[in-house]
Amino acid sequence: MQGNPIFMEKAIALATENVVSGRGGPFGAVIVKSGEIVASGTNLVTATTDPTAHAEVVALRNAATALSTFDLSGCEVYTSCEPCPMCLAAIYWSHCDAIFYGNTSADAAAAGFDDAFLYEEIKRPANQRSIPSANLLRQEAISNFEAWRMYAGRIDY
Amino acid sequence: MQGNPIFMEKAIALATENVVSGRGGPFGAVIVKSGEIVASGTNLVTATTDPTAHAEVVALRNAATALSTFDLSGCEVYTSCEPCPMCLAAIYWSHCDAIFYGNTSADAAAAGFDDAFLYEEIKRPANQRSIPSANLLRQEAISNFEAWRMYAGRIDY
Repeated sequence: MQGNPIFMEKAIALATENVVSGRGGPFGAVIVKSGEIVASGTNLVTATTDPTAHAEVVALRNAATALSTFDLSGCEVYTSCEPCPMCLAAIYWSHCDAIFYGNTSADAAAAGFDDAFLYEEIKRPANQRSIPSANLLRQEAISNFEAWRMYAGRIDY
Repeated sequence: MQGNPIFMEKAIALATENVVSGRGGPFGAVIVKSGEIVASGTNLVTATTDPTAHAEVVALRNAATALSTFDLSGCEVYTSCEPCPMCLAAIYWSHCDAIFYGNTSADAAAAGFDDAFLYEEIKRPANQRSIPSANLLRQEAISNFEAWRMYAGRIDY
């Protein structure tokens, strides 16, 4: 799989710009379709007080808006750093075709951004994770899926 | 760990309301702090053409806005369905204290929402995942972390 260095250079430049402008963390991403950048994003967690605003998530949201679709099939993600589990899963839900990354998770860990912990947490059974979770009202909740099954106008996604 | 059924009932009601109003998938979530709902969310993937707009992510974003902070320590997540990997990771980044869920992943799978695949993908080494990924310009990308280390005004998150 061959990436285009020009798009990675852009992602890296966005990341540094994000830091020196004071907007946030050292992460940038661009979304490419048919050889053109359709959207970009940087880490805006502190700037927008949004814990989900990692560069890739921001870029995917911007791409979906730009292309007017939640299905980003045919798109490639160029990100300045290997995606965390949240961003990786978001890339899957978006149906992007490929991921190119600059810094590795090891590079990020050395700089104080340790996603490895989260990858380990997600691998564990729920009852062994550091954030506790519990099932509640399962019998009632199933009505949600009944409603979905019965709703004629549903749009699958 | 004891959850309050009232909050789960609200999450379940939001999920059904989301379906029958035509806004989207059968998922709802509320964020609770100090015994009160501070924000809620429903699946808005199709309504807002945002592939990341799962109920939990939407609720976390709304909570962060409502509380004016990206750190949701002290908050509990009540979600109508067990979180997917994206939402679980988002809950970690938000530093919530606990997760209560109604439907299980198995219930969701039976209804056609199969997050199990994604949990399996994330567990795999990158080179064995269905979305291919490749490293590019690692030497250049490290400058992002240098910039971060040098930036005096950085806000850790």
